[in-house]
Amino acid sequence: MIRGTKTVLDLMAAKWSVDVLYLLANGTRRYSEVFYEVGEISKKTLTQTLRSLERDGIIARRVYAEVPARVEYSLTPLGWSLTTPLMAMFEWTEEHAEDLEMARLLHEGEPPAPRQLAAA
Amino acid sequence: MIRGTKTVLDLMAAKWSVDVLYLLANGTRRYSEVFYEVGEISKKTLTQTLRSLERDGIIARRVYAEVPARVEYSLTPLGWSLTTPLMAMFEWTEEHAEDLEMARLLHEGEPPAPRQLAAA
Repeated sequence: MIRGTKTVLDLMAAKWSVDVLYLLANGTRRYSEVFYEVGEISKKTLTQTLRSLERDGIIARRVYAEVPARVEYSLTPLGWSLTTPLMAMFEWTEEHAEDLEMARLLHEGEPPAPRQLAAA
Repeated sequence: MIRGTKTVLDLMAAKWSVDVLYLLANGTRRYSEVFYEVGEISKKTLTQTLRSLERDGIIARRVYAEVPARVEYSLTPLGWSLTTPLMAMFEWTEEHAEDLEMARLLHEGEPPAPRQLAAA
């Protein structure tokens, strides 16, 4: 594999990592807030995603001694630095969503040829 | 899922797409060149990756009427526009490779505590 790509992919591979990063770029969130705001994710998968990002030093977990315990997640300085290239990727997909859609439609198959229509 | 992230992930999901993009950013390649330069990929997977990128309008395939047929792949203007944010992601991983490694090492477990060493 080409140098550098593996790390990019490891970071992106956990499908939900990007969502969590995107969310925390808007500010610190409690576990339950992450769960509801990311949506369509099981608690098991969310916990794995958060642990993985924490292990990579991209997010920080802070536990407050309250009852019930309050757990908050936020971006670390490393995580913040990742938001710049990540937002560039988002912006690209926003800007080019129509181009991608158009390419896919064009590729899905041509309409029936005029001769076929005439023969029907 | 949060808006925009799905498209980013679809593009990245095919693990090898990023490698192919990275390679073609260095110029047009024949099929066999892509195969050897990407490395560690089966022909079946490479063909799927190339078709998927072609369908998305990111790469173009050109067949030359030679014997044996020469097939070349290159980035489309859309593909070229994607290289900018993609390179920003690469640069980030290059710049922060040590930070990521350090975070992982710190997280993998502490070295044995001094007391344990003394007791040995």
